[in-house]
Amino acid sequence: MKKADVVILGGLSGITAGISCQRHYPDKKVVLVRKEGTILIPCGIPYIFGTVGGPENNVIPDGLLESNGIELIKDEAVSVDREKKIINLKNHEQLQYDKLVFATGSLPIIPDIPGVEKENVFPVRKEFDYLRDVLDKVREAKNIVIIGGGFIGVEFADECRKNPGVKVTVVEMQEYCLKIAMDDEFCDDAEKKLAEAGVKIYKNEQVIAIRGNDNVEEVELSSGEKIKADVVILGIGSAPNSTLAEEARIELGYRNGIKVDRFMRTFTDKDIFACGDCCTKESFFDGKPSAVMLASVATAEARIAGANLFSPVHHNSGVISVFATIINDRAFGVAGLTERAAKANGMQVVIGEASAPDTHPGGMPNSTMLKVKLMFGKNNGIILGGAASGGKSTGEMLNVISACISHRMTANDIVLFQMGTHPALTSSPIAYPIVNAACKAVLPLSGSD
Amino acid sequence: MKKADVVILGGLSGITAGISCQRHYPDKKVVLVRKEGTILIPCGIPYIFGTVGGPENNVIPDGLLESNGIELIKDEAVSVDREKKIINLKNHEQLQYDKLVFATGSLPIIPDIPGVEKENVFPVRKEFDYLRDVLDKVREAKNIVIIGGGFIGVEFADECRKNPGVKVTVVEMQEYCLKIAMDDEFCDDAEKKLAEAGVKIYKNEQVIAIRGNDNVEEVELSSGEKIKADVVILGIGSAPNSTLAEEARIELGYRNGIKVDRFMRTFTDKDIFACGDCCTKESFFDGKPSAVMLASVATAEARIAGANLFSPVHHNSGVISVFATIINDRAFGVAGLTERAAKANGMQVVIGEASAPDTHPGGMPNSTMLKVKLMFGKNNGIILGGAASGGKSTGEMLNVISACISHRMTANDIVLFQMGTHPALTSSPIAYPIVNAACKAVLPLSGSD
Repeated sequence: MKKADVVILGGLSGITAGISCQRHYPDKKVVLVRKEGTILIPCGIPYIFGTVGGPENNVIPDGLLESNGIELIKDEAVSVDREKKIINLKNHEQLQYDKLVFATGSLPIIPDIPGVEKENVFPVRKEFDYLRDVLDKVREAKNIVIIGGGFIGVEFADECRKNPGVKVTVVEMQEYCLKIAMDDEFCDDAEKKLAEAGVKIYKNEQVIAIRGNDNVEEVELSSGEKIKADVVILGIGSAPNSTLAEEARIELGYRNGIKVDRFMRTFTDKDIFACGDCCTKESFFDGKPSAVMLASVATAEARIAGANLFSPVHHNSGVISVFATIINDRAFGVAGLTERAAKANGMQVVIGEASAPDTHPGGMPNSTMLKVKLMFGKNNGIILGGAASGGKSTGEMLNVISACISHRMTANDIVLFQMGTHPALTSSPIAYPIVNAACKAVLPLSGSD
Repeated sequence: MKKADVVILGGLSGITAGISCQRHYPDKKVVLVRKEGTILIPCGIPYIFGTVGGPENNVIPDGLLESNGIELIKDEAVSVDREKKIINLKNHEQLQYDKLVFATGSLPIIPDIPGVEKENVFPVRKEFDYLRDVLDKVREAKNIVIIGGGFIGVEFADECRKNPGVKVTVVEMQEYCLKIAMDDEFCDDAEKKLAEAGVKIYKNEQVIAIRGNDNVEEVELSSGEKIKADVVILGIGSAPNSTLAEEARIELGYRNGIKVDRFMRTFTDKDIFACGDCCTKESFFDGKPSAVMLASVATAEARIAGANLFSPVHHNSGVISVFATIINDRAFGVAGLTERAAKANGMQVVIGEASAPDTHPGGMPNSTMLKVKLMFGKNNGIILGGAASGGKSTGEMLNVISACISHRMTANDIVLFQMGTHPALTSSPIAYPIVNAACKAVLPLSGSD
């Protein structure tokens, strides 16, 4: 029987867990097991359908494994015998482990809509050949309907519309697209950018039926309206892929994620760890269960899991949740809590907002107006979240905000933040919007009201 | 006699000091005195000569003063009577103050080179009409020689070369351009980009004479070589503009900067403050005097000075020094200490380095290879500095590093950093180079060697 010190089951976060383990324990033999031949960059999947032009341009190179001394077995794990510490593989022999890591990710949720099983109705599976087929259909399509106006839905819409001669429609059940992710004013801006790109958006609407013969032909909305569709994309979210763990009698938690502690150890078995979309998460802010699924969170958890396999090194302080997206060339993103989420949790907050061109002078080429919103606890001034929209630098500005959150900086700390600036790269030092948003929050914080 | 609660003398940081004061003390009357009619964005000055096309496109709008209720007096302060708390103006009546802020900036250093007084030899003065004239000469020039390969020199070179038919040469006395600012490997990359753009660089060379009749015609180097020049730009640095303060018997410190405490108060007079290039600075890292002159530091100091005028609010924890530049479309920058500076101070450090495309996949449009170097104290793992080069997001990545420095994060903290990522905006979460550079530093830090 083949033996390894560490066996990792899964994709993206599995690679990072393996690299982290090898860094901390270079003498251990690490094997990664996954059924996919070629693994895709998950956040890049929507861009297959427009900007990058195909799944072959969105691949995570296996060289990363090789250069880190991690053996790859392309096979499906069908069961785990925890007593014997053995994994049964579909095509290969059994595999004995000392430590096991679940990095099995998530699977798309298939909504319970009549007709959802018809041809050309596609959930977003992270599989190379499958997405190649979806791309072929998207390229032939005249009418694409996307069910769900969250991130995946909106990114698919913005990419699919780049194919010539296609009409793209998004159907969102909430009053705004991206409502779970962003505050109203940013959702509003994002929808305008999407509409400017020619995408039709239905809100406060549900798809109640998907119709056609074998192939989808139209979708029917709760309002009674019918929309032509030769392709339907299901973008309504994902659920932890935890079946194998459950079958091995490993305890599951919130939303059926594999239940882990702060060291990324399962609650059930001290030799079994989990990381990424397949496991439970807690909020950095209040410790409550979090449904966030982000590749950046998954890899951060993977670094912790890999380091802790043989000796505790790191602990997980919980999900801050930092993300960005691009809609019709404008970037949007949030780090930490939105105002909506904070208020829903009964938190008292103070908001500071500022705008500035992301160059100085604003007449530099490719200058884009940046908008930043920061939120602080009313009683202690500690930053709870920030949102930004703007140009290419928006992604890293959210990371500035994330750094401030992770060290619990106050509005006063951020007023004194020593940013670097450059005419072509950032806002001016007078107008730098992260600092100016904090300045605007300081006085309401220290006031007597 | 005209009276004001607060009189501010100066330019860029004066505006920020005024805004900060008005925010904290909305009932106080604030007057800004400066002799310049139109004030320029200082960091944008090199870009007048290429990208933005003229000083009229690089102006700080006076509307900022108006909208913040700050009165502007365009006049020159000729003396300060500290006992009577009166400023004598050149053209207007006297001005009485309760609190006074020096934000008088810096003046270019004129090197002691024979011929430096000739026509068409230009120090970089921050004056509108003067720079308009320099631009006219630059546009007519066939051969431009820039003395000094620091930031200003290199940025001028990269912009001047964008004018058709001109030959641009930089003369640097050190073994590398930008040597004070960056470590060797980044200097080397920067010089290559400059050379690719057609700029000729002389290193380990000094200009010993500037020759010509009235107009400059050539410069002679210490090696004996002579270079044709119809325009010479002097980019060898600036010195605090502290003459007026000195004449008012206010104590000066390092490099003749106005000596201030952590509250930005002068040592001499509790009602007189100073901020920006005109005052002394201390390093965040060891409290030693710092010669750094950056608009971002000046505005941070101005926010502190303005807030502290009537009651202590903030204190200055010292200069981190964060900057970025662009050379031939590649961005370079440093936050905190360079390896060279740390070692010169006898610090024992551990370095971590990582590279990755600034998009994921790397095949996204406009993807640029990012390079990040982080430096940590060997004994405590606390971050001391970071350098980056790459594309448009480099400026904000340096601000991520600055946030990490300001809260004294360790390499272990940064390993766990929850960055947000997006295919078009950032590196992949597996490869995010700030985190990966920290990962590489962690083991040498915790090792026994």
